[in-house]
Amino acid sequence: MHVVDVIARKRDGQTLTRAEIDHFVAGAASGAIPDYQTSALLMAVVLRGMTEEETAWLTDAMLRSGERLDLSDLPGVKVGKHSTGGVGDKVSIALAPLAAASGAVVPKLSGRGLGHTGGTIDKLESIPGFRVDLSIAEFKDVVRAVGTSITAQTASLAPADKKLYALRDVTGTVESIPLISSSIMSKKLAEGTSALVLDVKCGHGAFMKDLDSARALARSMVATGARSGVRTEAVITSMDAPLGRAVGNAIEIEECIELLRGSGPADLTELIVRLAARMLVAGGLRSDADAEPAVRRALDSGAALEKLKAMIERQGGDPRVADAPARLPRAPHRAAVRAPRSGYLASLDAGLVGRSAAALGAGREAVGAPIDHAAGILIAARPGDRVDAGDTVLELLYTDSAKLERARHLAESAVRMEDEPPVVKPLVLDSVR
Amino acid sequence: MHVVDVIARKRDGQTLTRAEIDHFVAGAASGAIPDYQTSALLMAVVLRGMTEEETAWLTDAMLRSGERLDLSDLPGVKVGKHSTGGVGDKVSIALAPLAAASGAVVPKLSGRGLGHTGGTIDKLESIPGFRVDLSIAEFKDVVRAVGTSITAQTASLAPADKKLYALRDVTGTVESIPLISSSIMSKKLAEGTSALVLDVKCGHGAFMKDLDSARALARSMVATGARSGVRTEAVITSMDAPLGRAVGNAIEIEECIELLRGSGPADLTELIVRLAARMLVAGGLRSDADAEPAVRRALDSGAALEKLKAMIERQGGDPRVADAPARLPRAPHRAAVRAPRSGYLASLDAGLVGRSAAALGAGREAVGAPIDHAAGILIAARPGDRVDAGDTVLELLYTDSAKLERARHLAESAVRMEDEPPVVKPLVLDSVR
Repeated sequence: MHVVDVIARKRDGQTLTRAEIDHFVAGAASGAIPDYQTSALLMAVVLRGMTEEETAWLTDAMLRSGERLDLSDLPGVKVGKHSTGGVGDKVSIALAPLAAASGAVVPKLSGRGLGHTGGTIDKLESIPGFRVDLSIAEFKDVVRAVGTSITAQTASLAPADKKLYALRDVTGTVESIPLISSSIMSKKLAEGTSALVLDVKCGHGAFMKDLDSARALARSMVATGARSGVRTEAVITSMDAPLGRAVGNAIEIEECIELLRGSGPADLTELIVRLAARMLVAGGLRSDADAEPAVRRALDSGAALEKLKAMIERQGGDPRVADAPARLPRAPHRAAVRAPRSGYLASLDAGLVGRSAAALGAGREAVGAPIDHAAGILIAARPGDRVDAGDTVLELLYTDSAKLERARHLAESAVRMEDEPPVVKPLVLDSVR
Repeated sequence: MHVVDVIARKRDGQTLTRAEIDHFVAGAASGAIPDYQTSALLMAVVLRGMTEEETAWLTDAMLRSGERLDLSDLPGVKVGKHSTGGVGDKVSIALAPLAAASGAVVPKLSGRGLGHTGGTIDKLESIPGFRVDLSIAEFKDVVRAVGTSITAQTASLAPADKKLYALRDVTGTVESIPLISSSIMSKKLAEGTSALVLDVKCGHGAFMKDLDSARALARSMVATGARSGVRTEAVITSMDAPLGRAVGNAIEIEECIELLRGSGPADLTELIVRLAARMLVAGGLRSDADAEPAVRRALDSGAALEKLKAMIERQGGDPRVADAPARLPRAPHRAAVRAPRSGYLASLDAGLVGRSAAALGAGREAVGAPIDHAAGILIAARPGDRVDAGDTVLELLYTDSAKLERARHLAESAVRMEDEPPVVKPLVLDSVR
């Protein structure tokens, strides 16, 4: 098989065969196919697309490039969850214990943050002592004992995706539904769960800027999951404004604890309850009608908070943070971003708030850069709120004063005021099953 | 300037700026931009295209990556000629002396053959002693003395094109009007002529398979020439069947000599007279009405043949070949390909005849491979001819008997017979000014 012929076929809009896709992925991963051929084919895929079948084959080839976790020795129905990433997206940290307390088994591998979106692993590391580098055996032990565990993705899962993603990042070939879909799904399917619920973010602060492309990505991933025998559902949620009331690391952990205590923001609580319910349904544990009441019981009884504490303890962290959030890192300084005039907060640009938080030190702008777990942004007013001139809209928490000016500038530019109350979109925009 | 942003802009169908194109060409040529980014951008250009202006900028950037010949110290109007390449295309070897004998100055740099199309330089090398490796000073001396010279392209002209072409060849990014156009024109404009006539081949044996794409390529090159201040015209000619009656090296030189003696094939003679006339017009030397009679006088008087002999002599070759073609290399063996049945020769596939000649040793299938100058194919019957079963259609001339079987198979598959006389296309299909 000549790679040039495969490239030319995709360039001409043809459908590749499974053998061609396997050959390409294996060659790209091993280096047998040089990067300049790989990137030419990737660009042809970006511009010519891939069928649902090609996308599933690509996903499968990347999955088979590495290990697939064998969770068969763990009792219970294993259900995975993935978010395409947003600003203030602490969902997994509350959702995994909640779904576990509701009857699912939730083994979760997560990533670190880069750019304006934070990473679940970074957030968890703000809990003193919490280990995110569990071995597979340790990970399974925590899942067996608690019903859930969250640890860092290992390099042994879908290494071909890692290689292709690094190349896509520098060749303008990131923006492609089949490539994004196969990248995510190759890693999620490698986690070995029997069902999967996806949170596809849509809006200014997300990779998918509009509902049509978010739906297309959701459909592609759901179809790929189904072809692999993993019952997959997607919920499409708004990411125009940051999620919840905290953007950072320690302050997002604190918000999760509040949420599991029943005092979190109503819309975020609704989302997490809904996602947990869909995990129960996707796993075949509950019917559509029974799932949400079961989840609410797990939340209201405090069982979900207990699961979070148990996970923290089993992973070496200090479980007392759940009762005394002051044990989490705290930033020494605070600065307010105030409403420039009276009116309605029309929008709070998630992308800009995310970049502001990263500028404060809460995120990283390059792979491997250190994180200030205490830094972040508290959201005092949300889109739709009536505010008076001088009211605090955002509160910037920081350690290094040298970082304030740029962060403040970014945060101020995220705030848009209007005289009339804006139409605020619901958090859940659509779902794909 | 970030290359990823340039790639993304072309990927999204936008028009690049001159600065972006300059940056890309300089970086690709120097290696500052890695090949995997270059190939991604090339694929985006293949699928998104380029405007006439972008194509001219790309051409100019590649031209400026190397030397541009300074012919200002040569007296006379310098006119260039280029063919996009075909089977049996010996046009330049007769045309350059003919145009020179008609009043133009014709400094011509040519390439070697690869694949099924032969190279002018390989053909000239079949003349004993003929040098194709002239220095620029030697080349200009021959042009000054004779009015024309043909020598091999030097690596110092448009080196960026050489680099990009090598990458296009292995990344499925050859097939693109703006990329083909800029590749050809960067080299032709570097030759420093003030006018240029292009022979754009169209058909089974050419790169452009249909008239629409040949016209598009011709229009792109003519526009690029005009933007560079070089008066450029294109003639689109048929390349369904091989050109003339010989495909090879020495036998094509012999055919050129016959042609300049006035006894060449009528259609080939017509084409060469027409191209020479257009060179005079493009150079401003003759009017549309006067050009062709002037060329015919140069042909009929024997002046053109004398120019060829003078060029051969000045370049170290044996000018006696012009009077005694038996001095050229001769193949020891001949084998006939006969008509399988009586009827009309409907077509003679140029691509297959070219591959058959290459299989006999007359062409090369890899860069740098040696050539058998004596080997080749004589065309006994042309499309439209009535032949009886057993009549010779092609005659294979060869040195190495081991090469015959594959060559014969290819040659036989080039012959298609029909009961009714076929519609034979004229040699000249269109022109673009």
